[in-house]
Amino acid sequence: MTIVPNTLKEKLGHIIFDYNTLPARLFDLGLIAVIILSVVIVMLDSVASIHAAYGGLFYVLEWVFTLIFTVEYLMRVYVASNRFRYMRSAFGIIDLLSVLPTYFSLFFPGTQYLLVIRFFRVLRIFRLLKLVKFVREGEYVKQALLASSRKILFFLFFILVTVSIIGALMYLIEGEEHGFHSIPEGVYWAIVTITTVGYGDISPQTVPGRMLASLLMIVGYSVLAVPTGIVSAEMASMNEQIRSGLPCGTSCCERIEHDSDAKFCKECGKPLG
Amino acid sequence: MTIVPNTLKEKLGHIIFDYNTLPARLFDLGLIAVIILSVVIVMLDSVASIHAAYGGLFYVLEWVFTLIFTVEYLMRVYVASNRFRYMRSAFGIIDLLSVLPTYFSLFFPGTQYLLVIRFFRVLRIFRLLKLVKFVREGEYVKQALLASSRKILFFLFFILVTVSIIGALMYLIEGEEHGFHSIPEGVYWAIVTITTVGYGDISPQTVPGRMLASLLMIVGYSVLAVPTGIVSAEMASMNEQIRSGLPCGTSCCERIEHDSDAKFCKECGKPLG
Amino acid sequence: MTIVPNTLKEKLGHIIFDYNTLPARLFDLGLIAVIILSVVIVMLDSVASIHAAYGGLFYVLEWVFTLIFTVEYLMRVYVASNRFRYMRSAFGIIDLLSVLPTYFSLFFPGTQYLLVIRFFRVLRIFRLLKLVKFVREGEYVKQALLASSRKILFFLFFILVTVSIIGALMYLIEGEEHGFHSIPEGVYWAIVTITTVGYGDISPQTVPGRMLASLLMIVGYSVLAVPTGIVSAEMASMNEQIRSGLPCGTSCCERIEHDSDAKFCKECGKPLG
Amino acid sequence: MTIVPNTLKEKLGHIIFDYNTLPARLFDLGLIAVIILSVVIVMLDSVASIHAAYGGLFYVLEWVFTLIFTVEYLMRVYVASNRFRYMRSAFGIIDLLSVLPTYFSLFFPGTQYLLVIRFFRVLRIFRLLKLVKFVREGEYVKQALLASSRKILFFLFFILVTVSIIGALMYLIEGEEHGFHSIPEGVYWAIVTITTVGYGDISPQTVPGRMLASLLMIVGYSVLAVPTGIVSAEMASMNEQIRSGLPCGTSCCERIEHDSDAKFCKECGKPLG
Repeated sequence: MTIVPNTLKEKLGHIIFDYNTLPARLFDLGLIAVIILSVVIVMLDSVASIHAAYGGLFYVLEWVFTLIFTVEYLMRVYVASNRFRYMRSAFGIIDLLSVLPTYFSLFFPGTQYLLVIRFFRVLRIFRLLKLVKFVREGEYVKQALLASSRKILFFLFFILVTVSIIGALMYLIEGEEHGFHSIPEGVYWAIVTITTVGYGDISPQTVPGRMLASLLMIVGYSVLAVPTGIVSAEMASMNEQIRSGLPCGTSCCERIEHDSDAKFCKECGKPLG
Repeated sequence: MTIVPNTLKEKLGHIIFDYNTLPARLFDLGLIAVIILSVVIVMLDSVASIHAAYGGLFYVLEWVFTLIFTVEYLMRVYVASNRFRYMRSAFGIIDLLSVLPTYFSLFFPGTQYLLVIRFFRVLRIFRLLKLVKFVREGEYVKQALLASSRKILFFLFFILVTVSIIGALMYLIEGEEHGFHSIPEGVYWAIVTITTVGYGDISPQTVPGRMLASLLMIVGYSVLAVPTGIVSAEMASMNEQIRSGLPCGTSCCERIEHDSDAKFCKECGKPLG
Repeated sequence: MTIVPNTLKEKLGHIIFDYNTLPARLFDLGLIAVIILSVVIVMLDSVASIHAAYGGLFYVLEWVFTLIFTVEYLMRVYVASNRFRYMRSAFGIIDLLSVLPTYFSLFFPGTQYLLVIRFFRVLRIFRLLKLVKFVREGEYVKQALLASSRKILFFLFFILVTVSIIGALMYLIEGEEHGFHSIPEGVYWAIVTITTVGYGDISPQTVPGRMLASLLMIVGYSVLAVPTGIVSAEMASMNEQIRSGLPCGTSCCERIEHDSDAKFCKECGKPLG
Repeated sequence: MTIVPNTLKEKLGHIIFDYNTLPARLFDLGLIAVIILSVVIVMLDSVASIHAAYGGLFYVLEWVFTLIFTVEYLMRVYVASNRFRYMRSAFGIIDLLSVLPTYFSLFFPGTQYLLVIRFFRVLRIFRLLKLVKFVREGEYVKQALLASSRKILFFLFFILVTVSIIGALMYLIEGEEHGFHSIPEGVYWAIVTITTVGYGDISPQTVPGRMLASLLMIVGYSVLAVPTGIVSAEMASMNEQIRSGLPCGTSCCERIEHDSDAKFCKECGKPLG
């Protein structure tokens, strides 16, 4: 039973927040197109040759996009059933951050700062997240990461200690003449190496340095198994529960995934299989 | 009960589409040898010194191969029980794409275009996929990827947003003098870094740039756990189901793998254990 | 039932080893702040420009930190219920190693040695491990790694043999003129390649060298699946056991995780599910 | 019940093939030490400066090691209960290959060939595999890899096709002036990129080239999930079976791991849980 909207506010609300009616879908698709276009323009504007040719046009378009997004933001605040809740939500904050930088660029006309501000508009692309299809999958990934976040934090701490020690050792072994000018630079090299990125801008030249580097590489290569194992195991548990957990008809509520240690649904309190 | 083929069409059909008779096997093995040979020739022909010595021979061979594959394609269309269905299938399209480029090279004699066209012949190797042994394993991998495709798409979207933001930030931090000439170039560098490829053609030089780069590397290194975890968990579920799912004698149909959320076989509708 | 501490020793013990009282928490937080500060100073002191400006200050601070940590170490020995056990424990040894290098730097005034010693102070950061929150997660990761340690050692041995053979082959194929000056250098290159680090300081130039390198890369890329698979499977088993293993009320003791092959709790001997 | 050995053959057999008696252990440890020493010497001998200083000593040592290993090989053949079976076994062949190269170096005195031959001695280190401790873990890894070998082969074929197509495309897009001199060189670059090694000796310079490279990197980064997922799932299945499969007292034979699709032990034919 859908109620025919009467007031302007209700009509706008259906267009902006619904996903099932034709006007709402058209509005969403158009919005996504404009967002992608504006991000592409920010990126292209940073290329010197393109800026020289189309800088003026881009400046106008940037302001047009900013005005569109501002009106859209105000409309969302206007039609939201709980305005403060929308404004505090992740999407509300992103919506606001998508328009503020252009206005700030008026009051701080310094070129360099203007560039910093310009970048934040890229955040606009996050609005694509509103597309409902992906929210559930994102929820799945988010829950698996949350459930294993402490293990991953512990792992990152181990990585941090390892690169600190190896970075300091490499500074002592290789020294300034081979590009290791300080311990922080050694630590940077150790991060480049343990993550297997390996730019090659700094690389060990001496025999003991290369032996230590080899050790670090093999550790980094093997240790990658740890976060992967943590997340794999967590997701396997979640799949297992989704499949075998709740028989037909006993699903407690709309919550389809439960923490791996949950005995009761944390949404509705019903005991789980 | 195999029926003895009577007409030419039936005989050809048994040679081309069957896998159990000796002529069919010989036909397949010969075809694979010719495909590999033609791919190797296309590759070698691109080496300047080899092209100078054998360019003429390669040109003749290329046309011989193209004619062989054209005849084979026409034969397949001729003997197919449902011709339109074969032509629309993935293999039908690949079979056609394997011969078209050589003909196109007649009408568009520009060297550069000719080279582009030449490359597509590499697609011929896909015909090897017809080898029945691998189809089932490919099906396994494909189902696991399909079942987790939305999660992986969500993950790729997250990567895209991250490299956009970090790429823009690096452009602002490092600037033109350190090789970051524009935001798109910064984004390219961020992709090279987050995927741990790390060419080193562009690399950060300043302290804040290196700190941001370190963050990106550790994120890329840790975040790799996500797609791996998704696919591992999916495959573990599939293995579990294959092993424990269907007891002997209750297998519903030839379908051996079911979606992890399936309550009924989606091929025959029989309820699953 | 907590007993009110009477003697100085008991009071100190509560502050140093407890985690629940306010003074103990403040003590821990302050200690962590000082440790991080001292590590940062060691690192910054290695940057030539910062050392020139603040070297004197850093020298004084270094001695202040060393004295603080020395007093703290002596206090810990004093209040420990079993002094020898604390001194032999991993944390006791790390506590001692955190202060010794500065004293050694008095007797061995050579700059180079002093630098080596300075580095070991980074180990101080390990004291952060005392933070109780992370101990359980660390225990989880440690048990999973221990349970799969022999498999991972076997895997590392396989990597070692592979890089030895490929490194020797590359030395023969590429030779001195392409940067492979000896077998050990070839082995170093093979480690850089199989771990997918790829600095690019040494890289193959000849056709057979590049073919062998391609093979090594694909092996390294595929073989990464082995340690990851081992740890993933081990952690999935552990999750499975934590979830389904012990029904409410039958938990044998405080031990929550059991080896995957355990029939009885190795802490209290009670039979497991 | 161990029978006291009487003949020389029996005594030797106990020393060489047993692991429980003191002489057998000492023999094994000594052998491993000699193997490692000989491998290290081969490696060091390839370093020009070390060869100049110790080349003569190394030459003598090399012959001493070769004679030791030859006597050992002949002894093994002599005491083996089934001589032909030992000689055909993997270890028998490796034992022989460990001594042949030095003898071959007499008849083919060319320096370059001599170097090729020298390398094969590194294979000696494989004899370490005899250490019984690791054999079972190796068996576990081997079974998991065998069970998933067809899936991994399919995956490698997919990688091969991808790098062929992308390598050819990059040759067309970037061309000779950016270091892509031929399609095989493009394929080499694609392998370096998809495996995330990224030497940086060849790297794209044009905008479409970098876009294609970015695509390849993200594919390579995501697709790594496939072999990892396959092996993880296989090992999880094996762990599951080891844990829950065979209740105490029903173990059919010494075989502890069964294929994931086995209904009966393939060693003794007993039905599996």
